[in-house]
Amino acid sequence: MRMTVRIAVAGASGYAGGELLRLLLGHPDIEIGALTANSSAGDKLLQHQPHLLPLADRQLQDTTAETLKGHDVVFLALPHGHSAELAEQLGDDTVVIDCGADHRLTSADDWKRWYGGEHAGSWPYGLPELPGQRERLVGARRVAVPGCYPTVSSLALAPAVDLIEDEVVIVAVSGTSGAGKSLKPNLLGSEVMGSASAYGVGGAHRHTPEITQNLSAAAGRPIKVSFTPVLAPMSRGILATCTAQLKDASGVREAYEKAYANEPFVHVLPEGFWPTTNAVLGSNAVQMQVTVDSDLNRLVVVAAVDNLAKGTAGAAVQCMNLALGLPETTGLSTVGVAP
Amino acid sequence: MRMTVRIAVAGASGYAGGELLRLLLGHPDIEIGALTANSSAGDKLLQHQPHLLPLADRQLQDTTAETLKGHDVVFLALPHGHSAELAEQLGDDTVVIDCGADHRLTSADDWKRWYGGEHAGSWPYGLPELPGQRERLVGARRVAVPGCYPTVSSLALAPAVDLIEDEVVIVAVSGTSGAGKSLKPNLLGSEVMGSASAYGVGGAHRHTPEITQNLSAAAGRPIKVSFTPVLAPMSRGILATCTAQLKDASGVREAYEKAYANEPFVHVLPEGFWPTTNAVLGSNAVQMQVTVDSDLNRLVVVAAVDNLAKGTAGAAVQCMNLALGLPETTGLSTVGVAP
Amino acid sequence: MRMTVRIAVAGASGYAGGELLRLLLGHPDIEIGALTANSSAGDKLLQHQPHLLPLADRQLQDTTAETLKGHDVVFLALPHGHSAELAEQLGDDTVVIDCGADHRLTSADDWKRWYGGEHAGSWPYGLPELPGQRERLVGARRVAVPGCYPTVSSLALAPAVDLIEDEVVIVAVSGTSGAGKSLKPNLLGSEVMGSASAYGVGGAHRHTPEITQNLSAAAGRPIKVSFTPVLAPMSRGILATCTAQLKDASGVREAYEKAYANEPFVHVLPEGFWPTTNAVLGSNAVQMQVTVDSDLNRLVVVAAVDNLAKGTAGAAVQCMNLALGLPETTGLSTVGVAP
Amino acid sequence: MRMTVRIAVAGASGYAGGELLRLLLGHPDIEIGALTANSSAGDKLLQHQPHLLPLADRQLQDTTAETLKGHDVVFLALPHGHSAELAEQLGDDTVVIDCGADHRLTSADDWKRWYGGEHAGSWPYGLPELPGQRERLVGARRVAVPGCYPTVSSLALAPAVDLIEDEVVIVAVSGTSGAGKSLKPNLLGSEVMGSASAYGVGGAHRHTPEITQNLSAAAGRPIKVSFTPVLAPMSRGILATCTAQLKDASGVREAYEKAYANEPFVHVLPEGFWPTTNAVLGSNAVQMQVTVDSDLNRLVVVAAVDNLAKGTAGAAVQCMNLALGLPETTGLSTVGVAP
Repeated sequence: MRMTVRIAVAGASGYAGGELLRLLLGHPDIEIGALTANSSAGDKLLQHQPHLLPLADRQLQDTTAETLKGHDVVFLALPHGHSAELAEQLGDDTVVIDCGADHRLTSADDWKRWYGGEHAGSWPYGLPELPGQRERLVGARRVAVPGCYPTVSSLALAPAVDLIEDEVVIVAVSGTSGAGKSLKPNLLGSEVMGSASAYGVGGAHRHTPEITQNLSAAAGRPIKVSFTPVLAPMSRGILATCTAQLKDASGVREAYEKAYANEPFVHVLPEGFWPTTNAVLGSNAVQMQVTVDSDLNRLVVVAAVDNLAKGTAGAAVQCMNLALGLPETTGLSTVGVAP
Repeated sequence: MRMTVRIAVAGASGYAGGELLRLLLGHPDIEIGALTANSSAGDKLLQHQPHLLPLADRQLQDTTAETLKGHDVVFLALPHGHSAELAEQLGDDTVVIDCGADHRLTSADDWKRWYGGEHAGSWPYGLPELPGQRERLVGARRVAVPGCYPTVSSLALAPAVDLIEDEVVIVAVSGTSGAGKSLKPNLLGSEVMGSASAYGVGGAHRHTPEITQNLSAAAGRPIKVSFTPVLAPMSRGILATCTAQLKDASGVREAYEKAYANEPFVHVLPEGFWPTTNAVLGSNAVQMQVTVDSDLNRLVVVAAVDNLAKGTAGAAVQCMNLALGLPETTGLSTVGVAP
Repeated sequence: MRMTVRIAVAGASGYAGGELLRLLLGHPDIEIGALTANSSAGDKLLQHQPHLLPLADRQLQDTTAETLKGHDVVFLALPHGHSAELAEQLGDDTVVIDCGADHRLTSADDWKRWYGGEHAGSWPYGLPELPGQRERLVGARRVAVPGCYPTVSSLALAPAVDLIEDEVVIVAVSGTSGAGKSLKPNLLGSEVMGSASAYGVGGAHRHTPEITQNLSAAAGRPIKVSFTPVLAPMSRGILATCTAQLKDASGVREAYEKAYANEPFVHVLPEGFWPTTNAVLGSNAVQMQVTVDSDLNRLVVVAAVDNLAKGTAGAAVQCMNLALGLPETTGLSTVGVAP
Repeated sequence: MRMTVRIAVAGASGYAGGELLRLLLGHPDIEIGALTANSSAGDKLLQHQPHLLPLADRQLQDTTAETLKGHDVVFLALPHGHSAELAEQLGDDTVVIDCGADHRLTSADDWKRWYGGEHAGSWPYGLPELPGQRERLVGARRVAVPGCYPTVSSLALAPAVDLIEDEVVIVAVSGTSGAGKSLKPNLLGSEVMGSASAYGVGGAHRHTPEITQNLSAAAGRPIKVSFTPVLAPMSRGILATCTAQLKDASGVREAYEKAYANEPFVHVLPEGFWPTTNAVLGSNAVQMQVTVDSDLNRLVVVAAVDNLAKGTAGAAVQCMNLALGLPETTGLSTVGVAP
């Protein structure tokens, strides 16, 4: 006999919400309850998520505490600043998994500087593969799902923090779905296809303090992060190139293999293989390769993740499993959809 | 207690083989046995299918009857002309599901004209949604999986055969994975991206006689098929636009709704919605919409399918389920991976 | 000594306007005057057309008759319904080239049915390669530039009108720039990439009456047009597959070669070659191939055009050349940008 | 009266050769002579370059000194190792512009390490925008055209060499045409579309020593270069993100504006604008933006170039102009083809 977990998704009309539902439809223990939206409330889900046929006729409801109450788990896929108030109203009976940024940063100063307004406090951080995080997620009632760039960047560099100098450089190529369904001219297909462009350059992207927080915590000392995101003509996927000066080039590969030996979703590829975003599309896997540029004594790690899956919704499901005491990999897969 | 079905895949290094394995990894009743290839025999699967992490270390074996023998089901994803001899050596203990063309055409003359050489005979045709086909597949020991274009074109037009004149026009836009991993200059990314091109124009594509066979059988009279495939810059997906002069424009929508009311994988969309290939990516679903151009009294049906999934490997799994007496939808999904 | 033609572009922030300016920057006889916009008036052009570096600092002005007056030629790249009033105010001193739909249709009834509102009358139709059109364009003061689909479809079928039955079927695969910079969810890169979709199905697209008008005029009898546009994941380019039942299959190729023997921009490819949209990207060329499906006695023509170039802005420049008595090919090219 | 320069292209069937011909067809002083190839000798050019309609009927000849002799300028677009011997046989009557790598590196040791075999010596380096290079190109009889990555990376960092520490980190996202028409599985459209991947990681790419050479020469001291190329799903374009620790953050912007104030092809964008590869597609322009990450005191420069145009063939034409004493910008443009 299996228990059935009744879940709700707030923000079901967006990309993160859609991916949550795609994964939850394949999860054996889930019953899908309320689906909510803002401006799209009242619409059939088919209108926004035509790939989710089993839920095509579901009607989107307003995003209110009343609608979301009474579910075992509520997933929030909302713009930042909307989670804290809703979560308070839901009470501790309900596990709340927040795919937004509101409860990721531990420093109120960081929050104020990067997002503005008052800090809602931090929740257990949903990257169980980082040292010390999994324990905090088991049985948690609140989880802050990491940002997509912090997920792949932190996993790519955390095993090396003791071996590197204090500054890392990350350039991460991303598909456009990370920007959501925002109707901006630069996100139009005609603009995106055939083109690459950087944004948030010079330390301006809000994921920078989150990466800094993760790596500094792993290192036990401040790590400085130069982070540049680049938009590439693909819907999904992030390929992060992460480099740092090495203090000690010996033992690099071993450090990575040891760190992830027992992790079901993080794979250090055999030597000679390099990750591609296609290979992780739709999956919860992170594929990475690590090497040393011996002319420069510099570490270079390249890691691939699906920004919507392990980068957002897959991590959310993984955290739900941990929170509920289910096997961590339930409903998740390391098998990508390729080509 | 569940039975476990031990399967082998011949041609595991190609796109069809990779998609078979992706789906079979998610099938609850399957144990994956031998994986074979031709020129890639000896390689680790990771080298060819980096998205199939659970099988990364599997070694590809030679494609021989010896290797394939002793499995409950053998999937053949081979170039045409290679199936008949292998199948003979496997015997009737083994269910053989042929993703190639060898046993699709019922007419030896058609075979000779379109493929050349001797006709190996026809096997039960793996499109259970066509009238009369499902019965032939239940318990079958041999199945000919349809071509990708015939799958979507036949499903798009079969419900209307009694309402239309004898000639249909089909223009089907396809992703490039339908051409396989062949190293041809026109399939290079640099050539494909940003470009559309037709091929096999003027009735020259080998899927033409297969569509003709299906529609003529459904109609009980000869149907003439004008078929043009168009390559578009995407990896997967076929969008077929199918039109025919109507004898009778009344009852068109009803005919489609009736034909597919109980089909788990074929969905006639509500009025006002049009299919996209994204919405069926990675799934076994066919999404379609039907309308009448009333100025011309002409039927227009647009249908979307994933050429590798329901168009090849998904159909193969669906047929295996029928052949073995498993629930037809086991291990298959109508949920696409989008965006 | 060369004359210098001073031109203005209304709608300079859009895709058609941008392409006009790209071509006019390479035209030896042009001085670029006022650039106007609507909601973007006041902006620097760089903000909207970062590829037009020589005009980066130009400021967009309001689209008014006052701003446009006094130029030798005014190009209108505006939403439909805005051209007639502006053109009236400009007077006959100014050549007006309208890239919009307002003056393409000769029938007021057609206008009312397809666009609504009052018909502004028809102008000389800017497709000089159609029988009888070039003469009307020489010295014209007003020109209606054809729609992109009508351009390629009409050129693909006009040479055959005497050889075919009265109904044609056209399925045209198009890049997304044809939809302009409209901020619609289905035009977002995340939705478009990896996906094909049909729209305006069943004779609902506004280019249908324009194609019908062209082919019927060329035939001297009513031609019925089944037209389905399909959006593919590319920014530019249309590939049209055009078929019709043949009355007489002899002389097909000759008819095409004769029709376009002296046309600088329309190329019937040698047998065995098929057009691709890449090959005409950025150019004013139309590439086509013609064949007969002998099983069906059916004509199949495949033709490629750049929707923004020969499909819109290139045609506009070509028509300007004719109107002003310049050599027709000035500033235009048959050389595409590939790969 | 203009002089006419008769040119030949060796390697006319490839991407670099095709782009050379595209640009030369628009150059007012050029007569296109012999076009040669290796395995494609004997073919019509249409078969390999369908976008070059004016040359469609030209027949490719064998790549021999006999065929190439007697032209004013010979462009070599050949695999590395083939230029030196050919160039010797052509004599100094002929200007030889080598798009290959053979004569770029000044150090014989570097050549041996990165390419192997004997060093053929270095030629004037075709990046006139670097300090001291333009003078060497005026009137040159031999020119080594830079690699595509070194072009954009060197231009992005050279103005800052006096302001930065000795180590730079470059991650450059490139379209696939940089890899040429090689028939490799990872370059197939099905693999490339929707996917990003790194290659030559850890200092393994052959363009590393060329970038090092350029920046060290500009700095007058050794500069260490960490370079990672990333393949993105687009045919053309490179977007390079280039960072370095600053010794002195004041005067950064001024250094760039001063360096390129009089350069016709290198544009430092106004503050707030970031380059995209679309905006330079098909053009000879380099667009860049520069900023300082003040938390890290780190320079970040993002620069875009068309790898085939300014990155290869456009640079070659620019160098030909300098070599022949023509205006440097003849036949070249800063106008991109977008969207």
